[in-house]
Amino acid sequence: MSVKGDRMKKAAVIMSLCIAFFFSALGWAVEPRVSEDTEGCLECHSTVCPNIVEDWKKGRMSRTTPAEAMKKPSMERRVSFDKIPTSLTDVVVGCAECHALNSQKHPDSFEHNGYEVHVVVTPEDCAVCHPLEREEYSHNLMAHAYGNLKNNPVYQSLAKSVNGSQSFSKGKIVYGPANEETEAESCLFCHGTQVKQKGMVKRETDFGDMSFPVLTGWPNQGSGRINPDGSKGCCSACHARHQFDIGMARKPYTCSECHKGPDVPAYPVYQVSKHGNMFSSLGNGSSWNYETVPWVVGKDFTAPTCAVCHVSLLVSKDGTQVARRTHRMNDRIFERLFGLVYAHPHPVSADTSVIRNKAGLSLPTELTGEPAATYLIDRAEQERREKRMQQVCLACHSNEWVKGHFDRFKNTIQTTNAMTLTATQILLSAWDQGMARGPAEKDSIFNESIEKMWVEQWLFYANSTRFASAMVGADYGVFDNGRWYLSKNIQEMLDWIHLHKPE
Amino acid sequence: MSVKGDRMKKAAVIMSLCIAFFFSALGWAVEPRVSEDTEGCLECHSTVCPNIVEDWKKGRMSRTTPAEAMKKPSMERRVSFDKIPTSLTDVVVGCAECHALNSQKHPDSFEHNGYEVHVVVTPEDCAVCHPLEREEYSHNLMAHAYGNLKNNPVYQSLAKSVNGSQSFSKGKIVYGPANEETEAESCLFCHGTQVKQKGMVKRETDFGDMSFPVLTGWPNQGSGRINPDGSKGCCSACHARHQFDIGMARKPYTCSECHKGPDVPAYPVYQVSKHGNMFSSLGNGSSWNYETVPWVVGKDFTAPTCAVCHVSLLVSKDGTQVARRTHRMNDRIFERLFGLVYAHPHPVSADTSVIRNKAGLSLPTELTGEPAATYLIDRAEQERREKRMQQVCLACHSNEWVKGHFDRFKNTIQTTNAMTLTATQILLSAWDQGMARGPAEKDSIFNESIEKMWVEQWLFYANSTRFASAMVGADYGVFDNGRWYLSKNIQEMLDWIHLHKPE
Amino acid sequence: MSVKGDRMKKAAVIMSLCIAFFFSALGWAVEPRVSEDTEGCLECHSTVCPNIVEDWKKGRMSRTTPAEAMKKPSMERRVSFDKIPTSLTDVVVGCAECHALNSQKHPDSFEHNGYEVHVVVTPEDCAVCHPLEREEYSHNLMAHAYGNLKNNPVYQSLAKSVNGSQSFSKGKIVYGPANEETEAESCLFCHGTQVKQKGMVKRETDFGDMSFPVLTGWPNQGSGRINPDGSKGCCSACHARHQFDIGMARKPYTCSECHKGPDVPAYPVYQVSKHGNMFSSLGNGSSWNYETVPWVVGKDFTAPTCAVCHVSLLVSKDGTQVARRTHRMNDRIFERLFGLVYAHPHPVSADTSVIRNKAGLSLPTELTGEPAATYLIDRAEQERREKRMQQVCLACHSNEWVKGHFDRFKNTIQTTNAMTLTATQILLSAWDQGMARGPAEKDSIFNESIEKMWVEQWLFYANSTRFASAMVGADYGVFDNGRWYLSKNIQEMLDWIHLHKPE
Repeated sequence: MSVKGDRMKKAAVIMSLCIAFFFSALGWAVEPRVSEDTEGCLECHSTVCPNIVEDWKKGRMSRTTPAEAMKKPSMERRVSFDKIPTSLTDVVVGCAECHALNSQKHPDSFEHNGYEVHVVVTPEDCAVCHPLEREEYSHNLMAHAYGNLKNNPVYQSLAKSVNGSQSFSKGKIVYGPANEETEAESCLFCHGTQVKQKGMVKRETDFGDMSFPVLTGWPNQGSGRINPDGSKGCCSACHARHQFDIGMARKPYTCSECHKGPDVPAYPVYQVSKHGNMFSSLGNGSSWNYETVPWVVGKDFTAPTCAVCHVSLLVSKDGTQVARRTHRMNDRIFERLFGLVYAHPHPVSADTSVIRNKAGLSLPTELTGEPAATYLIDRAEQERREKRMQQVCLACHSNEWVKGHFDRFKNTIQTTNAMTLTATQILLSAWDQGMARGPAEKDSIFNESIEKMWVEQWLFYANSTRFASAMVGADYGVFDNGRWYLSKNIQEMLDWIHLHKPE
Repeated sequence: MSVKGDRMKKAAVIMSLCIAFFFSALGWAVEPRVSEDTEGCLECHSTVCPNIVEDWKKGRMSRTTPAEAMKKPSMERRVSFDKIPTSLTDVVVGCAECHALNSQKHPDSFEHNGYEVHVVVTPEDCAVCHPLEREEYSHNLMAHAYGNLKNNPVYQSLAKSVNGSQSFSKGKIVYGPANEETEAESCLFCHGTQVKQKGMVKRETDFGDMSFPVLTGWPNQGSGRINPDGSKGCCSACHARHQFDIGMARKPYTCSECHKGPDVPAYPVYQVSKHGNMFSSLGNGSSWNYETVPWVVGKDFTAPTCAVCHVSLLVSKDGTQVARRTHRMNDRIFERLFGLVYAHPHPVSADTSVIRNKAGLSLPTELTGEPAATYLIDRAEQERREKRMQQVCLACHSNEWVKGHFDRFKNTIQTTNAMTLTATQILLSAWDQGMARGPAEKDSIFNESIEKMWVEQWLFYANSTRFASAMVGADYGVFDNGRWYLSKNIQEMLDWIHLHKPE
Repeated sequence: MSVKGDRMKKAAVIMSLCIAFFFSALGWAVEPRVSEDTEGCLECHSTVCPNIVEDWKKGRMSRTTPAEAMKKPSMERRVSFDKIPTSLTDVVVGCAECHALNSQKHPDSFEHNGYEVHVVVTPEDCAVCHPLEREEYSHNLMAHAYGNLKNNPVYQSLAKSVNGSQSFSKGKIVYGPANEETEAESCLFCHGTQVKQKGMVKRETDFGDMSFPVLTGWPNQGSGRINPDGSKGCCSACHARHQFDIGMARKPYTCSECHKGPDVPAYPVYQVSKHGNMFSSLGNGSSWNYETVPWVVGKDFTAPTCAVCHVSLLVSKDGTQVARRTHRMNDRIFERLFGLVYAHPHPVSADTSVIRNKAGLSLPTELTGEPAATYLIDRAEQERREKRMQQVCLACHSNEWVKGHFDRFKNTIQTTNAMTLTATQILLSAWDQGMARGPAEKDSIFNESIEKMWVEQWLFYANSTRFASAMVGADYGVFDNGRWYLSKNIQEMLDWIHLHKPE
């Protein structure tokens, strides 16, 4: 389209906006179809926990019925159901529509002022209107984050070394286990707790004595939460209650809740990338539009947020699809960069507790780096995923630019794996010479000083260097938490074994 | 209130807004009552230091007289005086109203173009209109931050080990004291300097030769600044001159000036919390209102900033008070989390230099953790404070949610204190065996390598883990600066004593 | 000007704004003069790489012709040419105007659908309209960042120790060189790569088979990039393509891309300064204006961003110039704070590879701190630069305030240099006693553990303390990455030499 025509259109848009504003202002005042049950909830909760109600009112669900949502052209649709119960069709999605949905399936349902309500809304509830998203999400490692941690003896040993108690006695340290509360606010805060009803408690309220369920592992909004109904996941991990604003999920702050530390520094890397700069400089006021579906490249935003590359349905201004929406984020992730000793092809199954390497450990590679290939996607699948991601890159960059970027990234995967191997060899040497106690002594591989140095080599430094490469945030990958430490740490490990040489 | 009625109201609000805008635009043009003295200041300072004038013009004080401010309904009032000098009542609060107020009480007052003005506006000046706020603030540790540091020998020893010089000679390090300039931009930058007039200096200006006071410890905006008039504190630490925008004080960036480092990581923890995410995602454009008094939960904001939980007057939409305004922030703080070896009940007196533990040290606990109970609030007061804080939580969360959160937090206080005790025992063992020189040798407990490792255990890691728990920013408390280091540091200290064993 | 008159003006401004909006809306619809060549580019690229086109459309260059830009009063002008080719005068600056400009000078020009275009737009291209900015920029260290690194053997040794491979064999580490891809995403990411055409590649496209140039070191947007036409620099390092929004360059996020790590922590220091707080609290919505030229202190912004102090043309509200625009940022920098062992007067020549100290090393000081004075600016020039910077400070602060600040800063330069000297003396002692291999053994001074501790003393801690002082972000300079580590590191180095004492 020529620039000329484009400008004429803009004039038309200005006028339309004025008209639209008038009608939307009018429409705003039009009575929404709130169910009687929800009106009942609102009655008290406008004063009890008032922010919940106000927050919900600001969201789209308080203004739209599922029937209206389905009428939209397919590209603009935010729901994916074929059919839902008629009782839900023509009322907005309010308190009762979620918290009193299918009560019989929720062990935490309880009688509350004449309603059967459950505290923990689960992906099964959301799936009534969003079945495709639930299905896709279930194939993510994140959906299995609880089991992937809890059912993996290697991870359990690491978790104990971090969260467990340590007491000092006669010149020695004795490790104890971590208690449940500690775990819930450490690893399981993001991975998800197991939420189960363990009884009821009576409490005096402004409305008289009332009973409420007592839940284990509560509160929690971890991505792989095990819910009372047995389902896995927590949609509000990213889609914060009760506004459920799509724009919030599209902004990088949401991802940063779990992806900021040195173990998975996606957010700090993003911040120092050109993309992050553009988001902060250009997109952080009111000039970008985070609410539209589909999301229009160039019009609604100028540089990617996390969601742009990993999740959202993108189109160019002429309506051509740039990327399909996916809640299975690994669709575009060909290599797993973090959380394990070596970067490796993405696991086939989102349930990684099934993985065993040749040494029998629950690790996707050997300690020396060879991948446990049976459990990992093959080269063909890696290429498919890489291509999918590159389709997003190509909305803003040339083929040569993109190729140059991915070449460097792959090189970085190799060099950082090599630097981890070097650290591993130093550790193996320390074990061999009896300076530290390792697998041969059936001791944890995470509890001694030299072992912790080794962990930092891959969990922090190799991994940060790879993120900085993948997301073009070089500053983080050099002196901030990357190559400087990757190389320095090796010298410090070397120092350590020299000082601990058996005499 | 029903949703239906609520929507009708919104239509009315839209119309009112239009009308309000028209009148506010008109009103904007109405002449403010600027005093003659202030007009005199503005004359020159519109060109000399012009930003000061422009900044002030943008603020509320340049547009409102104290008389008008007092006319507001009590919940909307931003001032707390009973009576003020009539000369101040009907003019806006301009340059002269603060900088020429009660000149005789200000040793730094000087003759300036026919006016007696003082450079350093102090809480005594602000208290003319805001006496309650000054009074409340004076009960904070922050108000006594200068003396609490300067009059505590333990802290002075720590400060010297950080800010002092170190020179190398014959294989040894000799510590020297820190000079005044270093202290002013290290600890005292936030704690406050002592500002005293030490003379006058003559300077050539565009308006001829003029004399200006020379001040010690200047500039400084620390929270516990000792002012020339003997008062303590600096309102502009949080209420930045000369706009004094309430919205600025309500945003977390203000608190982050002093609360960002590993010793008091409130801000980085907030950033990765759901609250921080909501502030950044939803509240950082123009959709939240940071200017209203009282501050309406749900309407003006959807998630808390620092001020919401610790300071501001909050109401729900129907006008019910959720929390009273307090400038005595410890009203809601039952435990002191940071800055000392062990977390402990909040001190009774804001002047902590009076505290002595059984060992005679200026510490609120023994080195082994037992609280110096006489100087600390008791369990009943702790509970009152906890309840006050929970009132804020309950505006958005259920009782069970809140209880679950606080149970975890208390568990974390215990486990982190235990991990500090372990580190302390290692240090005691190092002192006992003569590997390092401690209290027995009358040596600083902060100046050697193993002692500095011990300091990091509580000043950085235990403390960060507690903040992450208190403010639900788990990501910071696991690998970023929390449990990972809390547990690793113990292994490193153990390593250290093994390597330094006397032979 | 009196406040009264000022308010009346505001009423007028409100009316003007309404009228202005009407006409700008109209004007928006007016046809821009896009060249035929650019229309040709837009034809395909509206669908191929669509964001490039949309991004450009949002920028000023797509709406303004050079002729119009020159008509502005000189203070409002954003261009600095005397004369440009007539073919460019009356069309907006579109794709062809940059990518097909002076093709014969660009070795990476290639035939593309009937046009001769080059991929890499260079400062020579931008200089057609912005010759003064190009000239000024060329005197920055940043413009020479590639050569300053590549042609300095000391830096090359440091780079190898960071980016090179390390392998473990028989208890020893062997260092290997870094490969080109690693360098391109480590140091050279910000310093700039050398971009050269190394051939063409044929690729299947939606428009049939086409050929594209293959470039070395591509992509890259480093500040000292060596371009195919031999020029140095990359304007889009700060002025991001293709919107080239001046507001983006004026926001601190842009500088943070390269100035965030512990080696040059300008951005994290800014964040915790009062200035940074005001930017985030007051200036990060829509209330400040980042687009105007000249930039009006107090009206457009209330607190400085990086650009305010270092680059932008500033005036006060009455039109008086506060600071001239300069793209030679060292105009106002009297001391070099970072990147070298000791802070020292700024180098005379932006090409620092010419520097040799008495020991023959490419360093601006001796290892013991004495400056290599011949290569550095003298005291008189330092004072001129300091004065220039202070002119900016004085727009908001009094002379005494500014003097107090600079006195502290100079004190900090001295004390941090002294702390570095102490660390150097410990290192020299380690070399002397054969604990580590240094210059005497012709070994790298960066590759061993104790040497890396020494590097952190100046590259991270001394330097961070200085930045915190210079930019008044104390919190970063105490416990975050400053004096705490500066003093602790010395104790750790001391520990190291005690443990490694030859027996």
